[in-house]
Amino acid sequence: MTSLPFAAAEPRSTVPAARHAERLARARALAAEQGLDAVLVGVGADLRYLAGYEALPLERLTLLVLPAAGRTTLLAPRLEAAGAAGAPAVAAGEVHLETWEETEDPLLRVRDLLGARAGRLAVSDRLAAAFLLGLQAALPGTIWSLASAVVGPLRVVKDADEIARLERAAHAADEVIHEIAHGRLVGRTEADVAREVRDRLIAWGHDRADFAIVASGPNSASPHHAVSDRAIRPGEPVVLDIGGPFGGYGSDITRTVWVTGGDPTCGPDDRFLRLYAVLRAAQAEATHAVRPGVPAERIDLVAREMISAAGLGAHFIHRTGHGIGLEVHEPPYLVAGNAEPLRPGMAFSVEPGIYLEGRYGARIEDIVVCAEDGPMVLNEAPRELLVVTG
Amino acid sequence: MTSLPFAAAEPRSTVPAARHAERLARARALAAEQGLDAVLVGVGADLRYLAGYEALPLERLTLLVLPAAGRTTLLAPRLEAAGAAGAPAVAAGEVHLETWEETEDPLLRVRDLLGARAGRLAVSDRLAAAFLLGLQAALPGTIWSLASAVVGPLRVVKDADEIARLERAAHAADEVIHEIAHGRLVGRTEADVAREVRDRLIAWGHDRADFAIVASGPNSASPHHAVSDRAIRPGEPVVLDIGGPFGGYGSDITRTVWVTGGDPTCGPDDRFLRLYAVLRAAQAEATHAVRPGVPAERIDLVAREMISAAGLGAHFIHRTGHGIGLEVHEPPYLVAGNAEPLRPGMAFSVEPGIYLEGRYGARIEDIVVCAEDGPMVLNEAPRELLVVTG
Repeated sequence: MTSLPFAAAEPRSTVPAARHAERLARARALAAEQGLDAVLVGVGADLRYLAGYEALPLERLTLLVLPAAGRTTLLAPRLEAAGAAGAPAVAAGEVHLETWEETEDPLLRVRDLLGARAGRLAVSDRLAAAFLLGLQAALPGTIWSLASAVVGPLRVVKDADEIARLERAAHAADEVIHEIAHGRLVGRTEADVAREVRDRLIAWGHDRADFAIVASGPNSASPHHAVSDRAIRPGEPVVLDIGGPFGGYGSDITRTVWVTGGDPTCGPDDRFLRLYAVLRAAQAEATHAVRPGVPAERIDLVAREMISAAGLGAHFIHRTGHGIGLEVHEPPYLVAGNAEPLRPGMAFSVEPGIYLEGRYGARIEDIVVCAEDGPMVLNEAPRELLVVTG
Repeated sequence: MTSLPFAAAEPRSTVPAARHAERLARARALAAEQGLDAVLVGVGADLRYLAGYEALPLERLTLLVLPAAGRTTLLAPRLEAAGAAGAPAVAAGEVHLETWEETEDPLLRVRDLLGARAGRLAVSDRLAAAFLLGLQAALPGTIWSLASAVVGPLRVVKDADEIARLERAAHAADEVIHEIAHGRLVGRTEADVAREVRDRLIAWGHDRADFAIVASGPNSASPHHAVSDRAIRPGEPVVLDIGGPFGGYGSDITRTVWVTGGDPTCGPDDRFLRLYAVLRAAQAEATHAVRPGVPAERIDLVAREMISAAGLGAHFIHRTGHGIGLEVHEPPYLVAGNAEPLRPGMAFSVEPGIYLEGRYGARIEDIVVCAEDGPMVLNEAPRELLVVTG
């Protein structure tokens, strides 16, 4: 392979072209406000957000050079010229495209593009250290900071188009949960069910099936368990946590089902039913607490207090949620210490879990948008414990 | 999703555990030789190489702290504890595991771990800028460099286990090329054929199907074309460039077929036949030039000179190859300016291409290992122009 193109290169719905012009203008204004000379954005979600440019992280430098004042340039390897020229912001003339040759040092091109505007520069948070150290060497006097200070405040508030995409993604994931929860589970390995989950995510329109956690029995007690060759047995819970990008925006849903194998003696025991009832109430209350002005950590606290009040606080061992958008994990994080007030348009997961180590556990997760008047829950799959034959 | 686990978590063959101990010891020795106090390795191929630890890049820091002298520590988020503990080098006791809590600042833990050993530090090349700038702020007096100076020289020379894995990956990709080249092509879209390629790569044992370039007709003239909704027609070439990791090590093969649709008047024209003959000879000569001591750029030059001699030099617009191993693109790069001598155990693609813009093009790619006595070609799929009904 001469370069690293997208595997799938599925057609992706892009936001209207004018949106990129607005975003670039707002980023420029924020950069100026923050005393930055320019923002340097490598491959990743920030670049997709600002310029609509999809590219894989290459060993060759691709960099959007966005000065607080002056022309914005996308510097790309010559081999990527066709793809870069097709990026919405480039095609619309908002961003000027420059390509560098195979035997050239692209860092010198960045230095030339910046000229005197290199006193304070921000780089995208995921830019590779190799590029950052190279830039630091090429621009020795510069003070460096992170581009999330500029792009973060823009990306964290989703517009109507973005929310519509998140909703479509959520509904597709809902369908997959429904199909899997009502299909055959008992006797199959987690890995086998996960394969079906991935196929169905794609079949329902996802660009990729990024994750398909199938955690059965004792594995359900580990929030980080992905999948194994363990066969699902009657009389145990199965945590399904699945999702991926859909038109560029992520889905992420968790539901817990209990499989009986058709044996009436294999229903959920009282301890699990109580655990689930506590979890269900905590997830509902935490969701209900979402509204503009409420600190992000408050949503975490609401869930945590309810679970703790039931004596299960020690078994809820992760934060309550993460933002979602162009990335499946992005700000805002619903975690103790994050006092950032929720704002209309923020989108995030609300996903408490209770894990009894070695025994079993459960998690419920929805994607929730903070609307003007409270929570807007994007997922519609039922949240009660699904007791199924499996 | 509470964290970002592997989607597939397919079982992966790992190298023998003792190998990690050797690699860590060699890295420590190289770090000491280079006057480094420690090497800091984030998530990625370097971490897989040194510790056998598979993890996805998270917003939470995972970092191997490898001092030139003293205990090696893997610092991981608490949520990842189970996976990190299972990493071969951790399980074997070669690397000490420390986890950090959700509300803690992991950069301070890195500072504590390093203590006075922070004068000169190397960071893995792909470490996110957010982590690097954080480390730079936490350790203000440190001189920073790239870990590739330490890990690169180790990774670039493959041992027998690694070559065996590359060979298995190559043979699986050979099979897929055979199946696709002899299957139905005409009338199908590139995207549809690419889907089949990906399915077959997985069916033949690949961990993932990372890329499936299907470039037909005029698209074959673009080395970077991935896939489109163009339907393949009789009387044109189709460039197939496919691969992905197999047991952690990459496959990457390109073959060009000509589809006739069964119409005897739709065979390759003389211009294409000549182009292909030149390409075939250039690829063979370049491969033949592989032996220890030959500069990497020499392989590129051999291919380029042959294509130029045929008057087609302007149409070979990319480097001749890239290293392959735990990453599908890694050193050594076969490109003008890279005078690094080839050494036994180096593995790379040899993939010249000739592209007549707007018309058609072709590329031939094999994975080649530099053996003591010359080239060892891992791919076995025939290299002659395959003229098929399609």
